[in-house]
Order: sequence, then structure tokens, then C-alpha cells
Amino acid sequence: MEVFGTDIYPYVEQAISIGLKIVLLLIAFFIVSPIGKKLISSSIKKISSKQELTEGRTKTLEKLMLNFYSYALIFIFIVTLLSILNIPIAPLLAGAGIIGLAIGFGAQGLVSDIVTGFFILLERQVDVDDYITAGGLSGVVEEVGLRTTKMRGFDGTLHFIPNRNISNVSNHSRGNMRALVDIGIAYDENIEEAMSVLQKVCEDFASRDDRVKDGPNVIGVQSLNASDVVLRVIAQTENMQQWAVERDLRKQLKEALDSAGIEIPFPHQVYMEKKIEA
Amino acid sequence: MEVFGTDIYPYVEQAISIGLKIVLLLIAFFIVSPIGKKLISSSIKKISSKQELTEGRTKTLEKLMLNFYSYALIFIFIVTLLSILNIPIAPLLAGAGIIGLAIGFGAQGLVSDIVTGFFILLERQVDVDDYITAGGLSGVVEEVGLRTTKMRGFDGTLHFIPNRNISNVSNHSRGNMRALVDIGIAYDENIEEAMSVLQKVCEDFASRDDRVKDGPNVIGVQSLNASDVVLRVIAQTENMQQWAVERDLRKQLKEALDSAGIEIPFPHQVYMEKKIEA
Amino acid sequence: MEVFGTDIYPYVEQAISIGLKIVLLLIAFFIVSPIGKKLISSSIKKISSKQELTEGRTKTLEKLMLNFYSYALIFIFIVTLLSILNIPIAPLLAGAGIIGLAIGFGAQGLVSDIVTGFFILLERQVDVDDYITAGGLSGVVEEVGLRTTKMRGFDGTLHFIPNRNISNVSNHSRGNMRALVDIGIAYDENIEEAMSVLQKVCEDFASRDDRVKDGPNVIGVQSLNASDVVLRVIAQTENMQQWAVERDLRKQLKEALDSAGIEIPFPHQVYMEKKIEA
Amino acid sequence: MEVFGTDIYPYVEQAISIGLKIVLLLIAFFIVSPIGKKLISSSIKKISSKQELTEGRTKTLEKLMLNFYSYALIFIFIVTLLSILNIPIAPLLAGAGIIGLAIGFGAQGLVSDIVTGFFILLERQVDVDDYITAGGLSGVVEEVGLRTTKMRGFDGTLHFIPNRNISNVSNHSRGNMRALVDIGIAYDENIEEAMSVLQKVCEDFASRDDRVKDGPNVIGVQSLNASDVVLRVIAQTENMQQWAVERDLRKQLKEALDSAGIEIPFPHQVYMEKKIEA
Amino acid sequence: MEVFGTDIYPYVEQAISIGLKIVLLLIAFFIVSPIGKKLISSSIKKISSKQELTEGRTKTLEKLMLNFYSYALIFIFIVTLLSILNIPIAPLLAGAGIIGLAIGFGAQGLVSDIVTGFFILLERQVDVDDYITAGGLSGVVEEVGLRTTKMRGFDGTLHFIPNRNISNVSNHSRGNMRALVDIGIAYDENIEEAMSVLQKVCEDFASRDDRVKDGPNVIGVQSLNASDVVLRVIAQTENMQQWAVERDLRKQLKEALDSAGIEIPFPHQVYMEKKIEA
Amino acid sequence: MEVFGTDIYPYVEQAISIGLKIVLLLIAFFIVSPIGKKLISSSIKKISSKQELTEGRTKTLEKLMLNFYSYALIFIFIVTLLSILNIPIAPLLAGAGIIGLAIGFGAQGLVSDIVTGFFILLERQVDVDDYITAGGLSGVVEEVGLRTTKMRGFDGTLHFIPNRNISNVSNHSRGNMRALVDIGIAYDENIEEAMSVLQKVCEDFASRDDRVKDGPNVIGVQSLNASDVVLRVIAQTENMQQWAVERDLRKQLKEALDSAGIEIPFPHQVYMEKKIEA
Amino acid sequence: MEVFGTDIYPYVEQAISIGLKIVLLLIAFFIVSPIGKKLISSSIKKISSKQELTEGRTKTLEKLMLNFYSYALIFIFIVTLLSILNIPIAPLLAGAGIIGLAIGFGAQGLVSDIVTGFFILLERQVDVDDYITAGGLSGVVEEVGLRTTKMRGFDGTLHFIPNRNISNVSNHSRGNMRALVDIGIAYDENIEEAMSVLQKVCEDFASRDDRVKDGPNVIGVQSLNASDVVLRVIAQTENMQQWAVERDLRKQLKEALDSAGIEIPFPHQVYMEKKIEA
Repeated sequence: MEVFGTDIYPYVEQAISIGLKIVLLLIAFFIVSPIGKKLISSSIKKISSKQELTEGRTKTLEKLMLNFYSYALIFIFIVTLLSILNIPIAPLLAGAGIIGLAIGFGAQGLVSDIVTGFFILLERQVDVDDYITAGGLSGVVEEVGLRTTKMRGFDGTLHFIPNRNISNVSNHSRGNMRALVDIGIAYDENIEEAMSVLQKVCEDFASRDDRVKDGPNVIGVQSLNASDVVLRVIAQTENMQQWAVERDLRKQLKEALDSAGIEIPFPHQVYMEKKIEA
Repeated sequence: MEVFGTDIYPYVEQAISIGLKIVLLLIAFFIVSPIGKKLISSSIKKISSKQELTEGRTKTLEKLMLNFYSYALIFIFIVTLLSILNIPIAPLLAGAGIIGLAIGFGAQGLVSDIVTGFFILLERQVDVDDYITAGGLSGVVEEVGLRTTKMRGFDGTLHFIPNRNISNVSNHSRGNMRALVDIGIAYDENIEEAMSVLQKVCEDFASRDDRVKDGPNVIGVQSLNASDVVLRVIAQTENMQQWAVERDLRKQLKEALDSAGIEIPFPHQVYMEKKIEA
Repeated sequence: MEVFGTDIYPYVEQAISIGLKIVLLLIAFFIVSPIGKKLISSSIKKISSKQELTEGRTKTLEKLMLNFYSYALIFIFIVTLLSILNIPIAPLLAGAGIIGLAIGFGAQGLVSDIVTGFFILLERQVDVDDYITAGGLSGVVEEVGLRTTKMRGFDGTLHFIPNRNISNVSNHSRGNMRALVDIGIAYDENIEEAMSVLQKVCEDFASRDDRVKDGPNVIGVQSLNASDVVLRVIAQTENMQQWAVERDLRKQLKEALDSAGIEIPFPHQVYMEKKIEA
Repeated sequence: MEVFGTDIYPYVEQAISIGLKIVLLLIAFFIVSPIGKKLISSSIKKISSKQELTEGRTKTLEKLMLNFYSYALIFIFIVTLLSILNIPIAPLLAGAGIIGLAIGFGAQGLVSDIVTGFFILLERQVDVDDYITAGGLSGVVEEVGLRTTKMRGFDGTLHFIPNRNISNVSNHSRGNMRALVDIGIAYDENIEEAMSVLQKVCEDFASRDDRVKDGPNVIGVQSLNASDVVLRVIAQTENMQQWAVERDLRKQLKEALDSAGIEIPFPHQVYMEKKIEA
Repeated sequence: MEVFGTDIYPYVEQAISIGLKIVLLLIAFFIVSPIGKKLISSSIKKISSKQELTEGRTKTLEKLMLNFYSYALIFIFIVTLLSILNIPIAPLLAGAGIIGLAIGFGAQGLVSDIVTGFFILLERQVDVDDYITAGGLSGVVEEVGLRTTKMRGFDGTLHFIPNRNISNVSNHSRGNMRALVDIGIAYDENIEEAMSVLQKVCEDFASRDDRVKDGPNVIGVQSLNASDVVLRVIAQTENMQQWAVERDLRKQLKEALDSAGIEIPFPHQVYMEKKIEA
Repeated sequence: MEVFGTDIYPYVEQAISIGLKIVLLLIAFFIVSPIGKKLISSSIKKISSKQELTEGRTKTLEKLMLNFYSYALIFIFIVTLLSILNIPIAPLLAGAGIIGLAIGFGAQGLVSDIVTGFFILLERQVDVDDYITAGGLSGVVEEVGLRTTKMRGFDGTLHFIPNRNISNVSNHSRGNMRALVDIGIAYDENIEEAMSVLQKVCEDFASRDDRVKDGPNVIGVQSLNASDVVLRVIAQTENMQQWAVERDLRKQLKEALDSAGIEIPFPHQVYMEKKIEA
Repeated sequence: MEVFGTDIYPYVEQAISIGLKIVLLLIAFFIVSPIGKKLISSSIKKISSKQELTEGRTKTLEKLMLNFYSYALIFIFIVTLLSILNIPIAPLLAGAGIIGLAIGFGAQGLVSDIVTGFFILLERQVDVDDYITAGGLSGVVEEVGLRTTKMRGFDGTLHFIPNRNISNVSNHSRGNMRALVDIGIAYDENIEEAMSVLQKVCEDFASRDDRVKDGPNVIGVQSLNASDVVLRVIAQTENMQQWAVERDLRKQLKEALDSAGIEIPFPHQVYMEKKIEA
């Protein structure tokens, strides 16, 4: 078969071959796509029930995975299509490589944010309303996103922390917290007596205050400072109640020492007078 | 068909083939281009209304995306055209690769600036006139650009911060702020009495001052220092009023303690004289 | 053989060739797969018995290795299959390279976590309930995962540390610990006498207290400070008992010096009065 | 046609083909070159007028862009020419790749300098004679180059800062500056009275001194220190006059407190004598 | 020869060609393998005898090198085999490249550990029971592995340090150590006399104590401090005896100054009384 | 033409083709080489005269550029020659790539040194005998090399700084330097009077001392310290004379205040005695 | 010619072609190898005589260069041979690329060590027995290797520093060193007189002590401290004698001030008594 003196036969043959390939590609696509989605959904659900994730969290993770899957599939579909149509992708991609390098470096932070965010969600490192320390800042979590975590600092500041900056997460809202009061008594005082006075306050405190979960107890002589002997009191309290308990304990311990006549000393100095030789 | 004794027939055939490819390329280009633009515009608008972005911000983002899209399309168009014309791009690109490497590294900062800037705008981390801390500097935002954010420091300095340097953003203009005053009383004073004096000032202050949103309240004994017992007062205030409220509270609390005869102590020292053995 | 005027013979030939290759691939796959698994299991077991790993730990490592092996095999299987079917993978992979670059950089942290986690488990650097310092944080280990290690700080905080942040591990739960008490005596006191008083306390302590494994002993004059001569006492104690022992020792040493009439001095200062020339 | 028994015909044919390609290349080059230059010049001018850049700055930027454009064009021209002449560039470039890697890493600083310098000029972050802080150093700008910025420190030192080191630019010469004086009064003094004395000085100062743009004002009790109550005075002054204004204010405020008989206290200490028990 | 109407002749030809290549490969393998092993063993032995390495250390190094060599050979064998069988490895490897990138970055730490560990062993930087400082931690070495070095800190902690963290190694167990005692005398005292008193102690000490290898000697006036003139005494001692020698020297020097009536002064202050103008 | 039954004709044809190519290559080489050298020499000279470089410096730069040019040309020549001779360079280069990677990373410091050194020379940032601060060290420059800069510290130490460590250069030998003396007077003194006394010294000093280029002047009250009012005196001096001028000024200002009876105060403290409640 | 019905003729032809290539390769190898070695040896010798290197150092450098050259040549020889034999190296090398990446990163430190070590030797930055500061540590150099430098710290510790950690080298053994003594006199003393007393000591010292190369001289009033006027004395001494000279000078200057009756003051404080208002 010739058109304008050219044998168009090979073109026809090629066209049929291309057509067949496209049909195959479409079939493959429509088989692979739903199977993959089902697989993702079910495996996310399995993990979610295992990790006891909330429903909202599960949905966020599922949506992320499905989005990622769809983009990857569309990308593969287009590239394959172009390659079947013999449109030269190699140079496109190679050429894009130069820009890609710059973008790859520039955007790695973004990928890093999402990867970290994914694991923060999956491993339940952080829940909304947890008080955490991460990325050098502390506060109560307001939102955990895939790219950014929002925290409200105690002074009212709203911190936006890209997830990549969150490496070590210190979660202060997982279980009882420790209340710790150090109190110094004079070197002249009887340590034994002071400890029993303080221990008595601790026991009264424990019996009256249900924020306290364990203790408080006087654990002993923490240090021999320049001017005082420091006794340490430790308790376990309800979460987020540790500061209030510390403040109340501090007040009561101080008042108990006062009424028992045990001195909390000011800094001491021994001085020796020397005449200046004129 | 022969010219100068050469059969030009294959050249003609090739020319027709190239021509056809170019026509196809142009058609593809004119179909893809407006569709992509529409898609971008509409998806930006959807996101914008969801994130409650201002119109100006939406336009900046839309313009950025359309620009990026246009450059990418033109790049693809040129590379494909050159490849159809059999002008060797591969060596060009490979050769450019060496320079590209240096540029890629050098320019990654630029890409990083734009990616970060894009998310600062999209996630509304920062608005003009917000007081923020970012990249180690604090100030009131004057302009949020795609490459650079301008902040006016409190001393009048204008800070230009490349967006890549902005990782953690602490936005001090999102909601009420905390005012905090620590005030020390003498060890001899009755803590209970001092707290009630201070609490009274707080209540008066709260009733007369509408900058205060919550409190102020005396929350207890914050620490037992060397020479004083520190009481802490905390309030929630209107945004940016926290410093003024602190200053006013500080003055009134000090005056109240003075008139109640409760001592704010100077540093204390106990001294003991010892004779020098001559 | 011709269909629609095309000789389908080469297609048939090619189909047979492809079919044969697939069969060979499947055979290879079913031979290699179980052999590899056996090899992994047995070598893990060998290492495990050599390193005296717990059964749980051995299983975690085995599971990790088998998972890794399966993913690698499936990846190789798919790529080979696609390549046999002449579906163009090269451009796919090349194209993916750009994204891969960004992901590679972004995800390297994840790989780094797993590699480090693998060795933490294998080398038994850390066991659950060990008290360790790693990644700038201290606490009692609650869980050692392949990606994250969970530690409970002494103040109740739960720390999530990505394993890549764990480089130097200081394990405080591997053997006896040192208790160290520094105590200062006055410059006027007889050092010899003070040391014998302290040494006597140490010997009493050692005889009565079975938390102590070695010592305590007075090892000598640690420093000549501005106002006191510091004597150092050192003991070896049961693990995690070092602080309690230090507190008890501190109390008893102080009381012994008191009853022996040896002064623990306050800071000293010599002062010289000078008249101001009017 | 045969020469030495070889049919040179294909060589001739090839030579013609090459010749034609070179002619096409030259034509393309002479069309593209001036068009690109015009485009660059006009777009630079547009940006320049929008950013209100000085003419010198515009020329620097234009020259940089034209240089860059010319080098890129010459590079493309040579590579294409070599490739048309079938001189093997691929191995050349590949071979150069090894060296290119080292150079790419080594020279990335240079590229980074130029990219940053370009934006410093374009965004007018810095003008000659501005007093700025950048790269950890402060001084008055003497020259902004594409690779290096020269600053004269206040002690006379000339700082050469590669532009890559300039990330955050703090420009102290863009608008009024703040003058801030903290002055401490004794705890015994009446705060109200002291503030009115200081405020009076401020008002006199403002009326007599036209370097002051706003204030000065006494804004309140900044802190309750160990020995004094600190009052803060703030003013807005002409640029670079802030230090002189602060010095003058400091002198006048001190003198006003003196003449009003309000004490600026020295550090206070309460001491208590204790007998040494012999 | 035709099977199912296909000429199988070329297949046979190809099979023979492949068979021959495999035979050649196997022969090459069995020749190269033992030669390489011999070469490695003998060169390790040569180095070992030159560096005076212990036998255990030599064996560790030899085993490492042989392992590495075997893995490399097996890798080369498999790849060559696959390539002879025309099983497409290129895409496999290319595909693996993406993952390889992530792994490469993630695992570089591991390689870095082994390379560093190799040189620590080879250069004998560290022996078991040496007291060293490396990677920011100090302790007595318990084990030097290829990946990790274990050190026992003085407080009983067991430190696991990945070898890559060991860059500067400070080995405190290679030769005599310095004992250094600084002792301050009063400004009023005769420096010459004090130095001769101290020097006498030093000479007595040296004659009675064989832990001392050189000195101790009074080397002169190290500094003129606010309240005392500091004299420095230096000695060379047996390794690890430096602290005990310092403690003993400190005690004897102090006692000698006491008995010679030379004052070790407390901090001095000159004070001048000034009347407050009422 | 047949040799051993083989038609050697194509070999002859190929040999001729190769020969022709080599001749062309040599011609190209001998044309390009001197042209490039001339271009480099003349452009270096142009830049040199523009930057007012010394002859020695110009020669160093020219030599560097010519060396670099020669190596590049030889490299290109060899690679092209090998490629003409059909000796396979591609695998060589690819193989070298692995080693090249390690070397590239390892040697990037060297390239970085030379690039930086080139610009230090070209931009005249540093001359021999300049007193500079760079790379965290200060000293007088003894030699500026392409790889290393040698500086003599004030304590006699010779510093070798690889140029890559020199990023910010602070050159203290470019113009007049500032001499700055802060002197504190008592709070009781009349500031006006003290300033006039000091100003008089300054004027005397300026009239008698030709090291001073501007000032010295008393610029005002720099700060209100705990015990003194600090006045600041500033002068511009000849380069490197700033310290001597400061020392002389300090002496004369102190003596002037003494003879004018203006007190330079010692630290002050107010003390209040309190009885201890027994 | 046919064997088993196959025309072996092309195989024979190929074998001859391969044989010829191998012969050419061997010839090239035996020509290039000795020429390169001669070139290296002679150029090392030229550099060595120019830099005045010791013979040992020259040999180390020459051996290093020859080793490097031999390994490179052997590598090129093997790769070329394999490529001539049509054994597929490309996949081998590509496959090795993945591992190569990890090794490349891991081993870059090693290359970096050797490159740095090479320049430390070549530029004579450090000689054995020099006292240097490098990589954050100070000590006397015991050995300069290509990978590691060994230094003996003053406390007896042996430091192993990988050369890559040595960037800035501060060599304290290249020329005379400065001895610096700061000595404070009372504010009441006559500065002129004190300076002449000290200058006299300096002149006596210089005349009697040949460790001193220049000075010592009293250079003036270094600072006006809280309680004393600091005078500075500077001398140039023989290398490593600076500390001994400083100690001797310090002693003599102090004794001279004592005998001249010039006070070296203790810290001063003015105190003012205030009654507590009961």
C-alpha cells in the first residue's frame, strides 16, 4: 500500500502494534489499581487495630497511602504510554535531571517531613493535647499534620515545627510525673530530726491529696552545699499536676520546718579581720 | 528522485515524518496547556477556601503554580522539539551535567527557599503584622515572600531571612498571651498572708483592666531561693499586651506588699567572725 | 502464517521464547526462595546462640531479615518479569530516579534507623529496663524497636528516640556502679585524723550494708579549695543503688565529722579595713 | 567515484550533510543570540523599575545575566558543533565527570556566592553605607559584589564576607531606631514619683531634640531586681542616632533623679552576725 | 534443524557458546580465588609482624579481609554468570539503584565504622585495658570490635561507641603520666623560702616513692592570683598512678607549708567604709 | 586484497581514516593551544591592572591559569586520541568512577582550597604583613598560597590555615583603627565636670601625638553600672597603633581624674545589719 | 572452515584481532610504566630540594606517589584486558556502583586523610618534636603518618589524630615565642614610678638571661580593672622557653614591687551601712 509513493504498510503495522500495547496497558492498569487500593486499605486497618489508633488517625494514614499510590500509578501510566507512543522520554527525563537535582535537594526536606510525620502518627508518639518537648521547643500539641506539627507554648505562642525537626520526642503526658522538692537545712541541725519532720508532712500530704499517686518521701541527703545540707523529697503525681504538687509541698515543708524550729539557712561566710601593714 | 546524484527520497520521507510529529506535538501542547492551568487554578481555589486564605495570598500561590507549570511545559516542548529535529540534546545535557552539578548544589538553597515559602503561605504560619520568632531572630513581619521574609525587630532593624532558614516558626500573635510575675518575699513572712495580699491585688486588677482575659492568680510558692520565697502570679492577656500588663502588675504587687508591711528582701548573708591565729 | 496480511509467525516465535523464559524464572524463584530463607534462619540462630540473645530478640531479628529478603526477591521477580515481557522498565526507573533522589535523601533517615536498630538488638547494647544515656537523653528503656527506642525519664517523661540519633550508648545497668562522696574539712584540721575518722565510718558502713560491693574507702586529698581541703570517698555498689548509697554515706560521714569535732567549713574570707582618704 | 580504490562517494555525501547542519546551526545561533539578549535586557529593566533599583545596580545585574547567557550559548554552540563533526564528546564529558565531581563540590561555594549575591542586589537587602549585621559580623557596607560583600567594622577592620555566608541580613539602616535606657531606683522610693520625674525629663528632651522621632516615654517597671526597681524609657530616633540619644538621655535622667533626691541604689546586702561555737 | 517449524540451530549454537563461557568462568574463578587468599594472608602476616600486632588481632584482620574478598568474588561470579545467561541484570541493578541510594546513605555509617575499626586495630591505637578518651567519652577499653568499641567508664557505665564516632583517640595508657599540683601561698610570704620548703618535700617524696619516675619539682610561680601566689609542682609517674601521686603530694605539701608556718591564704578583700549621706 | 585468506581491505581503509583523524586532531591542538594561552595571559593582565595587583601576584594567577589550561588540554588530547584508536575508554572511565567518587569527596577540600585561594589573591583580601582574623585565628600574614595561608600569631605561633577554612576574612590593616577607652567615675561626681576634664586630656593628647588621626573625644555616658558611671572616649589612630594609643590614653585619663580629684570608684555595696532571732 | 556444521572462520578472525590488541596493550604498558615512574621520581626530587625536605620525608612522598601510580596502572590494565576479551565489565562495574556508593561515602574519610597527610608532609607544616595545636588537641608530635598523626600531650597522653581532623595547624615551634606577664598595682600608686621599677627588673633580666631574645619591656597600662591598674610586660624568648621565662619574670617583678613598696592590691570593696527600718 503506497501513499505519495511511500509504502505506508509498516506504519499501519506499527499503529496496530501500538494500539494493542495501549489496550494491554489499560487492562493492566484497571486490574492493578483496585487491587492495590484494597491491599493498602486492609493492611492499614490491620496495623491500626494493632496499634489502637483512633479512627481519625487511621483515615489520615489511609488517605496518605492511597494518594501516594495513585500518584505513583498515574506517573507509571503516563511514562509507559509515552514510551509506547515512541515519544522520547529519556532526554526529557535526563534533561529534567539537572533541575531534578536541585529540586531533589531542595525538596528532600518535604519528603523528610512526610516520612517523619507518617511515623509520628503511626507510632502514636504524640496525641493532640499532649504536653511535649520536640525540636527544642515545648508546648501542648494542637495539631499533628503530615508536614507540620503545631504546639501551643505555655506563654501563648503558637509553634509551627516541620516534622523533620522533630527527632527526639519527649512526651510529658504518658503516665504519672515526678514532683521533686529540694530543701536545705542548716549544718547545725540534726539531720535525723529534720528528715522525720519532713516525712511527717509528706505523709499528711499523701493522705489528704489525691493528685499524689506515690509518696511523697524524704529520700535522704542529696548534697552537702557550701551553707546547707540539702534534703530531697520525691513524689509521683497525676500527669500535669506535678508543678502544683511541688508548689504545695514546698509551702508546707517550709512551714513545717519553721514551726519545728529547724533553720533554713541563708548563705554563710566566715570572715577574718587582718590589719593592713602601713 | 536524485539531486546532485544523491537520492533525496529518504530525506523527503524523513521531513514529512518530522513535520507530522511537530504538528502532533503542537496539538498535544495546545490541548494540555489550558487543561493544566484550569486544574491548577481550581485546585488552588479549593485549598484556599478550605484554609481561609486571603485573596492576595491565594493569588500569589496561583501565580507561582502557573509560572512553574508554564516553565515546565516550555522546557518539555523545547526538548521534545529538538529531539524530533534530531539535534543532539543528550550530549548537551550530559555536558551541562557537570555545570549542572555545581549549579544544582549552589541553587538548592533557592529551591529550598521557594518550597518553604510556599508552605509558609499555604499553611498560614505567618501573617503580615504578626510578631514571630524564626531563624534565630524576632520581630514583626513586614512581608512574606517566596524567597525571603522581612521582619522588623523591636530595635528598628529590618531583618531579611531566606525562607530556608525558617524552620521552626514561633508565632506570638495567635491568641491570648501569658503575663508572668515572680515576686520574692522574706523567709520570715507568713506565706499565707502574703498570698492573700497579692491575690487581692490580682482581683482588683482583673476587675479594672480589660486587657486581662483570665486571672491574674497567685499560683503558689515557685521556689525557695537563697534569700527569698518566690511567689508566682500568672494571667492571660490580650495579644501583645502581656508586657504592659506585667509592668503594671509588677508595680501594683510591689506597692501592695509595701503597704501591707511585707518585706521584699535584699540578698542575705550570715557571717561569722574568726580570729586569725598570729 | 498471516493474519490481516501480516506474518504473525515471528510473534508466535517470540511468545514461545517469552513463555519459556517465564517458566525458567518461576523455577529459579521457587528454588532460590526457600534456600535463602533456610540460610537466613540458620545463620541468625547461630549468631543468636553465640551472642546469648533472648528468644524474643532472635525472632525479631529473624523476622526482619526474612521480610527484607522477601521484599528483595519480589522486587527482583517483578523487574525481571517486566523485562522479559519487554515492558520498558528503564525509562520508568530513570523517571523514578528524580523522585527517587528526593525520596532517597528523605528516607535515608529511615534506613539509618533500621540499620542502627538492627545492631542495637544484635550487639545487645540495650535491654528493656536498662538505665541508659543515648541521644542526649537518659532514662529506663521501655521498648527497643527497629525504628524507635522508647525510654522513660526519671521525671516520668516518655522519650521516643529514632535509632539514628542513638550513636554513643552509655548503659548504666551493666555491672556495679561507683558511689562517690566529696567532703570538705577545714584547713586547720589534721588531715590524717579526719581521714581515719572517715575511714572508720566507711568500714562500719561496708560491714552493715550489703548493697556495697567494694569499699567504701577514703582515697585521699582530692583538692585544696579556697576554703576547704576536700577528701574523696569511693565505693562500688550494686547497680542502681549508687545514689541511695551516696545519700546514706553523705549523712553518716557528716555526722561522724560532727561528733569527732572536725569542722566542715563555710566559705572563708579575709578582710582588711582601709580608711577612705577624704 | 573512487580514490585509491575506495569509493569516496559516501564521504562526500556526509560532508555535504555536515556542511548543511553547520549552516543551520549558525543561522539558529545568529537568530537566537540577539533575541535572548533583548529579552534579558528588557526583563531586567522591568524588574529594576519595579524594585526601584539604582542604575548602577541594574547594570550589574544586566551584565551578569548577559555574561551568563553568552557563556551558555557558546557552550551549547561548541558542543553541538563537535557533535555534528562526529568528534566524540561523550567520553570527553564522561571523563571530565570524575574531575567535574571534585570541581562541582569544590566550586559549589562559588555558585552559591553568586546566586546569593544576585538576590542581595535584586531584593535591595543591602545598600552601600548601610549598617548591617550578617554572617556573624557587623559593620558599614563598603561594597556589594557578586562574590563578596565588604563591610567596615566600627573598630576600623575591613571584613570580606563571601555572600554564601550571608543568610540572615539584619539591616540597621532602614527606618527609625529605638533608644532604650533602663534605670534602677531604690526599693524605698515612690515609683509613681520617680516615673513622673523621669517622664518630665523625657518631655523636655523631646521638645529640644529633633533627633527624636517618637517619645521618649517611661513605659513602666521592667523588673524587680535584687537591689533596685528598674524603670524603662523608650524612644524612637533618627537612624544611627540611637546611641547618641541613649547616651544623652542616660546623663539627663541620672541628673534629674539626683536633683529630685531619688536614690539610684548600689547593690544591697543584709547581713546577720552569728557567733562561732568554740 | 527445525522444531515446530522453527530452526533451532542458532539456539544450539548459542547454548554451546554459553556453555563454553561458563566453563571458562569457573576455571578463572578457581584459579583466582586461592591465589587472592594466599596473597591476603601473607601480606597481613607481613604487616602484622612489622606492627608487632598480637596474634588475636592479626587473625581478626585476616578474617575480615578474607571475608571481604570472598563476598566480592561471589558477587562478581553471580553477576558474570547472569550476564552470560543473558538474564538482564542492568535493569535489576538500575532499579536497585533507587533503593541503593537510600541504603547507601543509610549504611554508609556501617562502612565507616568498619573502615575506622580496621585502622584502630591495624595501627594499635587502642588495646584492651587502655584508659582512653574518644568520641567525647572516657573509660577503660573492654573490647575493640570492627563496628563498636566498648569502654567502661569510671562510674561503672558501659559505653558502646560506634567506631565512626572515634576520630581523635587520646590514649592515656601509653607511657608515664604527669602529676601536677598547684598550691597557693600568701602574698606576704617569701617565695624563695616557700619554694625551698616545697622542693624539700618533693625530694623526700621522690626518694621514698617508686611510683614516681621523674621529679617531683617545683617549677616556679605559675600565676599571681587575686589573693595568692600560685606555685606549681610537676612529676612524672607510672601510668594510672598520677591521681594517687597527686593526692599524696597534695597532702604532704600542705602539711609541710603548715609546719613551716607558710600561709595558704583564704580569699582576701580590702573594704573601705563610707558614710551614707542622709 | 587478502592476507591469510582474510580481506584486509577494510583494515587498510580504517587505518587511513584513523590516520586522517589524528592529523586533524594534532592540527586542532596546535591551533587551539597558543590561542588559549594568549587569551588567558591577556585577560589576567587586564584584570590585574584593574585590581591594581602586584606583579608577583599577577604572575601567580597567570601561572595557575596556564597550568590548569595545559592539564585540561592534555587530558582532552589523550581521551580523544584513545577514542580515535578505538581503545575502549568508556569502561575505564566508568570503572574509575567508583574510585573517583571516593577521591572526588576526599579531594573536594583541595579544590575548594584552590578556588578560595584564587579569589583571595584576585580580590586582594589579604596581603603579606596584614594583620587579619580568619578561620577562628588571628595573626600577621606571612604567606598567601593557593592551598594554605600562613599567619604568625602574636604569641609567636605559626598558623597554617587551609584556604577553605578562610571564609570570612577580617583584615585589620586596611585603614585607620579605632582606639576606645571606657573609664568609670563615681555616682557622686559631676558628670559634666568629669567630661570636661577628660575632653581636655583628649585635646592635649591629639595635639601632641601624630599617631592619632581623629579625636580622641569623650562621647558621653556609655552605661550606668552597679557602682560607676562609665564615660567612653574614642579616637581614630594610625593602623596597628590603636593598642599603644589606648594604653597611653588610659594612663593619662586616669592621672587627669586623680589630679582633678574625681573618684574612680571601687565596687560599692550597701549593707544592713539584722539580728538573728535566737 | 566448519566444525560441527558451524563456520568457525569468524571465531578465528576474532581471536587474531583479540591477540593483536593484547600484544599492543602489553607494549603500551611496558612503555608507559617506566616513563611514568621516572617522571614521578624526578618531579618529587625537584619539589623536595625546593622545599628543603629531609630525605626520609622525600622517600615517603615518592613511595606514596609510585604506589598510587602502580595501582592505577594495574587497574587500567585489568579493565582494558577484560574489555578486549569481551568479558562484560560494564554490569560488574554498575553492580559494584551500589556497593561503591556506600564504600565511597564510608571511605572518603580515608582518602581525605591521605590527601591531607600528603600536604602536611609536602608543605612541612609539622615536624617530629614540634609542639603543635591541631584538631582541638595540643602536644608534641611523635609521628606524622599518611593517615594519622601522633602527638604526646603534656600530661603524657598519646593522641592519635586522623589527618582529616587536622585542618588548622598551629605550630608553636617555629621561631621565638612571646612571654607575657600582666601585673596589677593599686589605684593609689604612681603609675610612672611603678613602670620604671618594673622596667628596671626587665633590663636586669634581659642582661642576665640568654633565653630572652627581645625585651622584656613594660608596654603600658593594659586595663583599668575594678581594683587594680594592670601593667603589661612582654618579651621574646627562645622557643619553648616562654613559660619558664614567664614564671621567672613573674617572681622577680613581684619581688621588685614588694621591695619598692608598691602595692599589688587585693580586691577592694566600698561598703556603706544602712539601718533597717523596723
